[in-house]
Amino acid sequence: MQPIGKTRWAIPEGYIPPDSTGEGRALVSHEAACILNANDREAHVEIIVLFSDRDPAGPYRVTVPPMRTLHLRFNDLTDPESIPQGTDYASVFDSDLPIVVQHTRLDSRQAALALLSTIAYGAD
Amino acid sequence: MQPIGKTRWAIPEGYIPPDSTGEGRALVSHEAACILNANDREAHVEIIVLFSDRDPAGPYRVTVPPMRTLHLRFNDLTDPESIPQGTDYASVFDSDLPIVVQHTRLDSRQAALALLSTIAYGAD
Amino acid sequence: MQPIGKTRWAIPEGYIPPDSTGEGRALVSHEAACILNANDREAHVEIIVLFSDRDPAGPYRVTVPPMRTLHLRFNDLTDPESIPQGTDYASVFDSDLPIVVQHTRLDSRQAALALLSTIAYGAD
Amino acid sequence: MQPIGKTRWAIPEGYIPPDSTGEGRALVSHEAACILNANDREAHVEIIVLFSDRDPAGPYRVTVPPMRTLHLRFNDLTDPESIPQGTDYASVFDSDLPIVVQHTRLDSRQAALALLSTIAYGAD
Repeated sequence: MQPIGKTRWAIPEGYIPPDSTGEGRALVSHEAACILNANDREAHVEIIVLFSDRDPAGPYRVTVPPMRTLHLRFNDLTDPESIPQGTDYASVFDSDLPIVVQHTRLDSRQAALALLSTIAYGAD
Repeated sequence: MQPIGKTRWAIPEGYIPPDSTGEGRALVSHEAACILNANDREAHVEIIVLFSDRDPAGPYRVTVPPMRTLHLRFNDLTDPESIPQGTDYASVFDSDLPIVVQHTRLDSRQAALALLSTIAYGAD
Repeated sequence: MQPIGKTRWAIPEGYIPPDSTGEGRALVSHEAACILNANDREAHVEIIVLFSDRDPAGPYRVTVPPMRTLHLRFNDLTDPESIPQGTDYASVFDSDLPIVVQHTRLDSRQAALALLSTIAYGAD
Repeated sequence: MQPIGKTRWAIPEGYIPPDSTGEGRALVSHEAACILNANDREAHVEIIVLFSDRDPAGPYRVTVPPMRTLHLRFNDLTDPESIPQGTDYASVFDSDLPIVVQHTRLDSRQAALALLSTIAYGAD
């Protein structure tokens, strides 16, 4: 398959809701970066997380196998540090191969989940 | 009408919620790719579905008549295989004519539906 | 102000939910195209609505005053014909001046509204 | 870090819901422009707010520190004037450095919040 995407992406909106009303991992409030790697090689992605009032965190490093997607939850990042809940953040992605990034949040703070999603900003 | 769109599209986020609370087809949890064909000829579209932990599925083949829209539910794809519910996936679209693709999910797992939507990523 | 935008836009997703649970115009289920005109002249916009199984409707014609925004509800279009509820559609916008178009749906079929939104696809 | 983004952005959709059902600042109905500044210098941003039936408001001026994100609530703007609730508006952003802008609304008018989000339109 012909590769598709860009190597730099940005998501200005970031917020992990601190509460949940659903049961199980699927309904826990979370925020995800969905990464599509349509290359025939592994994509190595570095993520920097920016905040409003402190220095950035990272780089976080993830690998996406060839012809696979990784729905990465920001909640699951721990190395080099966790991202606090209930805190404004943003993120920048740098990959060694073209990828496509989509941002999604599931918010179940109130008793009926809410969703948002957008393709991230891909740098020219 | 002058054609509009691109011939390659990607949607990194994909997830068919495994439950629903609504009644009827309209309120069943589903995920759709809305395809707009503003050409005066049929558009032939091939879709590859990528997963996190197995080889891709497809190609799925759909035809969109001239000057029509097709709101394709991933739930309805069966050939060459169905897409399992509750599973992370992503998709890549290749068309022989310029089209526009928008991604939408209706999630009615909890008793009050949620929606997300974004224009897909169109390759340059 | 320097103009911003493009002259052709497309929204593949279109669906006016047939029911509502809210009170008043603000909470009626609706779908809107939000148009921003940052020019110092009126923008004249023609809209064609495409369906899945019949010929397109339109053109619908709207005028957006200079340095104004128009949040156009598809529900309100009547000339040359209304857009039926509960029906899949899509839309293409042609303007004589650069504009920006954003697609939004408020869905209050179930007792707790849902929202979706995305910047439309702007043709190069 | 290499800068990312553009210097002009537009958000055609704008509406601050006039009611809320949640408790605390986090669950108040609000609309935000999330701004990412991945430069090593302060970004100075001017915002013009357009309406449907009156002259534009602004410019509003905000500063985003280097390598920080600002999740700016339109609800909080007061200088030169507040943005009324329950009113259609749109916004245009001009920055002296490349930034990325994402639009988000949290709507808690009914008893279960709803969310929308999209990357704003970045001018070429």
